[in-house]
Amino acid sequence: MRSDKSALVFLLLQLFCVGCGFCGKVLVWPCDMSHWLNVKVILEELIVRGHEVTVLTHSKPSLIDYRKPSALKFEVVHMPQDRTEENEIFVDLALNVLPGLSTWQSVIKLNDFFVEIRGTLKMMCESFIYNQTLMKKLQETNYDVMLIDPVIPCGDLMAELLAVPFVLTLRISVGGNMERSCGKLPAPLSYVPVPMTGLTDRMTFLERVKNSMLSVLFHFWIQDYDYHFWEEFYSKALGRPTTLCETVGKAEIWLIRTYWDFEFPQPYQPNFEFVGGLHCKPAKALPKINFYLQEMENFVQSSGEDGIVVFSLGSLFQNVTEEKANIIASALAQIPQKVLWRYKGKKPSTLGANTRLYDWIPQNDLLGHPKTKAFITHGGMNGIYEAIYHGVPMVGVPIFGDQLDNIAHMKAKGAAVEINFKTMTSEDLLRALRTVITDSSYKENAMRLSRIHHDQPVKPLDRAVFWIEFVMRHKGAKHLRSAAHDLTWFQHYSIDVIGFLLACVATAIFLFTKCFLFSCQKFNKTRKIEKRE
Amino acid sequence: MRSDKSALVFLLLQLFCVGCGFCGKVLVWPCDMSHWLNVKVILEELIVRGHEVTVLTHSKPSLIDYRKPSALKFEVVHMPQDRTEENEIFVDLALNVLPGLSTWQSVIKLNDFFVEIRGTLKMMCESFIYNQTLMKKLQETNYDVMLIDPVIPCGDLMAELLAVPFVLTLRISVGGNMERSCGKLPAPLSYVPVPMTGLTDRMTFLERVKNSMLSVLFHFWIQDYDYHFWEEFYSKALGRPTTLCETVGKAEIWLIRTYWDFEFPQPYQPNFEFVGGLHCKPAKALPKINFYLQEMENFVQSSGEDGIVVFSLGSLFQNVTEEKANIIASALAQIPQKVLWRYKGKKPSTLGANTRLYDWIPQNDLLGHPKTKAFITHGGMNGIYEAIYHGVPMVGVPIFGDQLDNIAHMKAKGAAVEINFKTMTSEDLLRALRTVITDSSYKENAMRLSRIHHDQPVKPLDRAVFWIEFVMRHKGAKHLRSAAHDLTWFQHYSIDVIGFLLACVATAIFLFTKCFLFSCQKFNKTRKIEKRE
Repeated sequence: MRSDKSALVFLLLQLFCVGCGFCGKVLVWPCDMSHWLNVKVILEELIVRGHEVTVLTHSKPSLIDYRKPSALKFEVVHMPQDRTEENEIFVDLALNVLPGLSTWQSVIKLNDFFVEIRGTLKMMCESFIYNQTLMKKLQETNYDVMLIDPVIPCGDLMAELLAVPFVLTLRISVGGNMERSCGKLPAPLSYVPVPMTGLTDRMTFLERVKNSMLSVLFHFWIQDYDYHFWEEFYSKALGRPTTLCETVGKAEIWLIRTYWDFEFPQPYQPNFEFVGGLHCKPAKALPKINFYLQEMENFVQSSGEDGIVVFSLGSLFQNVTEEKANIIASALAQIPQKVLWRYKGKKPSTLGANTRLYDWIPQNDLLGHPKTKAFITHGGMNGIYEAIYHGVPMVGVPIFGDQLDNIAHMKAKGAAVEINFKTMTSEDLLRALRTVITDSSYKENAMRLSRIHHDQPVKPLDRAVFWIEFVMRHKGAKHLRSAAHDLTWFQHYSIDVIGFLLACVATAIFLFTKCFLFSCQKFNKTRKIEKRE
Repeated sequence: MRSDKSALVFLLLQLFCVGCGFCGKVLVWPCDMSHWLNVKVILEELIVRGHEVTVLTHSKPSLIDYRKPSALKFEVVHMPQDRTEENEIFVDLALNVLPGLSTWQSVIKLNDFFVEIRGTLKMMCESFIYNQTLMKKLQETNYDVMLIDPVIPCGDLMAELLAVPFVLTLRISVGGNMERSCGKLPAPLSYVPVPMTGLTDRMTFLERVKNSMLSVLFHFWIQDYDYHFWEEFYSKALGRPTTLCETVGKAEIWLIRTYWDFEFPQPYQPNFEFVGGLHCKPAKALPKINFYLQEMENFVQSSGEDGIVVFSLGSLFQNVTEEKANIIASALAQIPQKVLWRYKGKKPSTLGANTRLYDWIPQNDLLGHPKTKAFITHGGMNGIYEAIYHGVPMVGVPIFGDQLDNIAHMKAKGAAVEINFKTMTSEDLLRALRTVITDSSYKENAMRLSRIHHDQPVKPLDRAVFWIEFVMRHKGAKHLRSAAHDLTWFQHYSIDVIGFLLACVATAIFLFTKCFLFSCQKFNKTRKIEKRE
């Protein structure tokens, strides 16, 4: 119902927008799940500004609901293979396998999963690019820009085939490899931690050693393991030899879903724009959203001075094992706050009277509620940013992927306590909750991040849309793309120059030594002759 | 008269601003000449926004006119020594010595000048920091932020003594050393040219070799030559050992007076903000500025379809030798355009009827005049940005310092032709002028840069003021300052990590070889015993 209403609003706004400014055509290659929730906000804003937005999707997505009425257009391609099984494998991997592993093992395992499903991804890509009717239609539409989530390859290949400039939207690639290798994002290993390793910008000597080794490992291993597969496919599709980095690296702008309230300060290229938290908005009063939420508001209000705790493991993990649920519930039962837990599983036997389970919660509105004291989160980027936006301290229970890193960032900035999902006990959770609620430094730090977030020259969403529109207006943004893209790796790292200078020094030393020895010989000879005379 | 009027406007605006938002106190350590013209624009905007601005100056500045009524406050310190002679030495150096030298010789000579006058600069600094009455007054005023032009040292030292967070405003330091060493600006030598060398981001192999060598040379030479002098002085003033980089590196924000319409894209730190062209504004119709300019407008209008050429060597060089003036004038006489030449010297005998000499010209308004076809400039940053703003192609006659680099940038972007000030003939100037006027690509490229300049999410001046105000509001901007500042140079470049890893590899090879040799020996012994048996 809500979606219908917003579709109507967009259509009305579009009517008002017709004729005002430049209205372009945007083609979108999205990624499903939480990525889609973020990208959708940009697309809705583009619609509001009068642009025509077409989303490419296959017939069985998770959250991309192309059947609902919407101001977005969809080009749906039938997938020959059902992807439900893969989704289940992924959830099992994330909940049961990854949390038990060390950082780098977890990253490797996650990449293994992508390698495992790359056959399906390739098939998906083929069903788009070899669909002549679709490609002809897209070609004839003359899109002004493509917005691409590069986590699932193919978008950049389509942009190349359609000759449309493109903008990437990304939180992070596995090990940050894509940004570093293809985006030429500099990463001095002494203070820029390899993403997904849980390291921070302030490392001990041994951590710096670890960071350097992991960087090399990820770079060569992922390049060899996965990139070569796609390079072969891309080269065949384009009819000329290419690399994954060559096509991805043609991006005009990289919209990164973080900002300096979250990131450790590090150097970046001018075509990187940090637009973290673009989906955040002020909280709405609960009953105003929905009459059924009146009950939720009553529960929140009943917490009195103690306030509430919001608990969600995101859209992907709405369930945990019975044992884990009981551990969690018994901890929650011991705090004076009321708890709103987004949970679809069987009601735990240890559930306290202060805890209520909900299939769905209006997370942003709850985090922005004046009674909210803490947020228990798996560390997904969308949730983290809602907590930053509203200045709520966190208890982080990272499960996989970038979540470990996200929580490490919040921990380093003093706004979160981390607990291990696999090994956590009731005491761990209880201790962590009590710490973030009673130790005022967590709230202060969360508020500091919130102030940083709110005090930007331009809001993240406006910046994201500005640069997409810039690419439309100017047919690219080449003035922001560094010349590093046109260098080979040995030129980029000045290996040839260093080699040449070393050779010069060696030659000079050699010549000097030769001359010296020659002079010595000559001098000795002269002395011998003199002696003889 | 105009200054009086603007002072009144500022005072009125300040009256309106009282009570609106946060009004803070800003202390300014400026640099004189063209630098001041740029910084003044920021200060005027700060005044408009209701802040109290106090400028520190000595009693004999060139362009900082503290005697005229103004909304700015001034703290004037009497200089024991007259600086007129130094100014004359500088103009002679720039006009007669530097243009004949090669790029790097010119940079070294310029630095030599700074080294030569550092005694005076030190004395100037002492007359501020050891003036107890002044320092007490400044301390008691509790400034919220200092705005510092670091080309003349001392400002950062004062900020440290007064414990006030500070923002730097800078085009470039000699060889870019300060930004790189103290600001931790990364500079991959394969595509980031050493500033002031005239190199671009697209270098041949030999140019990359030159770039790497110059980088090392500038770094060590300037560090040893000049920085150590100031380190000694700073350490004494602070009463503890420090380095120039340590104090300068404490800057919260670096406001760089360029943008990507001018710069070659290169990586930068989050606390660098590129605000080039912040002084630019739309052109005003000439007669509206001043009745005396009616004559100038008549002259411009008399050019008809051919249009006009604007010629200025900036505020520092309003005169050239008679010989040079004749060379220039005879070239100008041969073009169909009317020429407005800002020149204070003796009227050249070869001056054509199409050329008029002016003591002063409203440069921005002339460059924005629809009849303007080209701009002959020495390549000062302010003039270059006015040309970019209005999309005017240039003939560059760089004289010293960053001017060579500025023109090299415009040349690489196809908006300027460069000629050598020392060796130029009438034919050179004529050919260059005809090229930029008749070859439409120059106008197109200048217009492209202009479009890039005008299409930013926030105007440069607003961004500059935003970040100064941000530092006031938050008492700093530490979330943008990378952890590189807390590393030693060998940690920063991971020398210790590389050394450790190499030592590990060497030990492993050593142990492996030992084991292998030991096994071989054992195996040989066994075989010998077996043979004997």
